[in-house]
Amino acid sequence: MKSHQRKPPGRRAAQLRVALGERAYPIEIGMGCWAGLGEAVARCVPGRRAALVTAHRVGRLYGSAVVHSLRAAGFRVDVFSVSDGDIAKNLGQVERLCRALVAAGSDRETSIVALGGGVVGDLAGFVAATYLRGVSFVQVPTTLLAMVDASVGGKVGVNLPEGKNLLGAFHQPRLVWIDLATLSSLPLRQRRAGFAEIAKAAAIWDAAFFQRLESDVEGLLALDPAVLLPAVRRACEIKAEVVRRDEREAGLRMLLNFGHTLGHAVEKLMRYRKVLHGEAVAMGMAYAVHRSEALGCAPLGTAERLIALLQRAGLPSTLPDFPRQAYLAAIRADKKRRASHVHFVVLRRIGRAQTLPLTPAQIFPPLGRRKSAGGVRRSGRGAHR
Amino acid sequence: MKSHQRKPPGRRAAQLRVALGERAYPIEIGMGCWAGLGEAVARCVPGRRAALVTAHRVGRLYGSAVVHSLRAAGFRVDVFSVSDGDIAKNLGQVERLCRALVAAGSDRETSIVALGGGVVGDLAGFVAATYLRGVSFVQVPTTLLAMVDASVGGKVGVNLPEGKNLLGAFHQPRLVWIDLATLSSLPLRQRRAGFAEIAKAAAIWDAAFFQRLESDVEGLLALDPAVLLPAVRRACEIKAEVVRRDEREAGLRMLLNFGHTLGHAVEKLMRYRKVLHGEAVAMGMAYAVHRSEALGCAPLGTAERLIALLQRAGLPSTLPDFPRQAYLAAIRADKKRRASHVHFVVLRRIGRAQTLPLTPAQIFPPLGRRKSAGGVRRSGRGAHR
Repeated sequence: MKSHQRKPPGRRAAQLRVALGERAYPIEIGMGCWAGLGEAVARCVPGRRAALVTAHRVGRLYGSAVVHSLRAAGFRVDVFSVSDGDIAKNLGQVERLCRALVAAGSDRETSIVALGGGVVGDLAGFVAATYLRGVSFVQVPTTLLAMVDASVGGKVGVNLPEGKNLLGAFHQPRLVWIDLATLSSLPLRQRRAGFAEIAKAAAIWDAAFFQRLESDVEGLLALDPAVLLPAVRRACEIKAEVVRRDEREAGLRMLLNFGHTLGHAVEKLMRYRKVLHGEAVAMGMAYAVHRSEALGCAPLGTAERLIALLQRAGLPSTLPDFPRQAYLAAIRADKKRRASHVHFVVLRRIGRAQTLPLTPAQIFPPLGRRKSAGGVRRSGRGAHR
Repeated sequence: MKSHQRKPPGRRAAQLRVALGERAYPIEIGMGCWAGLGEAVARCVPGRRAALVTAHRVGRLYGSAVVHSLRAAGFRVDVFSVSDGDIAKNLGQVERLCRALVAAGSDRETSIVALGGGVVGDLAGFVAATYLRGVSFVQVPTTLLAMVDASVGGKVGVNLPEGKNLLGAFHQPRLVWIDLATLSSLPLRQRRAGFAEIAKAAAIWDAAFFQRLESDVEGLLALDPAVLLPAVRRACEIKAEVVRRDEREAGLRMLLNFGHTLGHAVEKLMRYRKVLHGEAVAMGMAYAVHRSEALGCAPLGTAERLIALLQRAGLPSTLPDFPRQAYLAAIRADKKRRASHVHFVVLRRIGRAQTLPLTPAQIFPPLGRRKSAGGVRRSGRGAHR
């Protein structure tokens, strides 16, 4: 008797490749695929020692499955756990982790495996970039934001009290392993924030992808694999393509900062509290697309369309009400700045972006001039949900 | 009336180039040449902002000349001074320096200029490698050791309490500026220690250069420009050539570790006190050349010749008297180790080296077997001057 066979759980669903010459690496995307992780890592790194770096909460959920998979593939595994949240992303933690690696006897053939969100990936990646002048690195992102953004591209770093990511490096992973099943434990608000970076990728790069997002943003946020998997895949593909063409952020890669000039300003002004990165980016994109219209870069209606998608995803699209001078100061302090100008990213239309060298005052003109040109609403309630 | 004109002081005496593709950079070597520094930096870096990182003592001697030269070339200069000695080379100092850079408004177009010995170069280089994910870096070495070794090749890093250089990066400078006049303020013991790395370069790479060193080591240590300048130039050239062919230490670059396996062990066992790096390397080279003969790699007489040169330079050539087990443990802890083997560098003859994968026990056999084969003397007095 024949029967229809379903795909076995854990089967790999998609593989991409970030084409960076000798630093090229695969991105594997699946659903419930821990069993294959160890063997995939073994194919990508030298040696059979792994240092799993994770945060307390995510470590409790998935740590043992990852350790089991790595051990089954022949790895000796040491586990290092850091505090949840951005507080762990500092040089003190780097020192603590590196000293623990020395104590565990970790050598140059040890691979650092980051299991968690962007904080864990950035911190563990900075350790991998600097420990013994650099060891192999594997990203296992467990938030939607980290899957489509932080884990691809090689940017790693830590914060200083003065600002985020002020110390860092470019250190490409050997493998990015995305198990979409981990998103089921991610709060809806975090999924929405991750969606902001997916919408960004579509808005700057791929109008057809943007249209597909419009057709079922609700299914994506409900983690319907038929919608989620191709969307994550396409967002990673876009990021990988941009990174391939500009690994060190000399030009093209700046397009990925769409929404980030104001997004970073909002995060800074809110002191990184109460607003998630993806929410701040959504506000920043809404602002930037209005400004794109006002500057005559994008046709009227572009803003309406992008903002409608963000709103359907439950994302904020107005800036919190800080004084203009506070925004200007925050924009000036952004580390992307060179000399007096900021490379501000505007849309030409949905699916196409460019940078403009603008002064902070041109990016953020007085309210009257901004309003007449683009109609950015400013809400006294603040723009985060 | 005609007169014989002497070369003006400050004239550039030699220029080399480290050929690393888009990371290529010049090494300028002169005597009393501060006046040209600012313009040379201006040719090599973007922007006109410089952060001069120096140590207290050397900063008092040469800081104002360097600042003056940079300002004359149009740079805005901020000066940051760290403690003298290895104590400054840690992550706490990295954080302190980076926060000071933020406070001074240093942006991505700011160049870090390191004025000092290896400690300042390694620390400032690590800051340059990581601040805002990497800014331009200029090395102005003021010790003989830093001139011929640390400043060329892009290795930067800091220490952990567990060991030296356990955190670091590869970050090539945009310019190395060597003013040999700074050596006149360097104690003789430090000049001798620097000579050890010059002798190393000759021993592993260039028999004719080795012969020239033999002909007037005393003139070199007395800073006779006619001897010193070509020797520094050739040592830098050799290092640059090795680095060009193996930037990330995948193979060939390991030859530069000649004398360093035991040298590092000695430094570790002496707790980095009372012995200079160059002195430890001299001991390590003396040991390694004996071992090269004992293993049948080098013809008899090779050790005698190298050791005679080291002794003429006033360098130690016997290992301090620690138990064999202590040496084995120190060798095992060396970060150059991969799995169970160490890439031990032996001479084939004067001017030619190779690596052998050996276990720590093969590198450091029991005294009896070592002695019969190579005749390493071990002195209870310790081997440093």
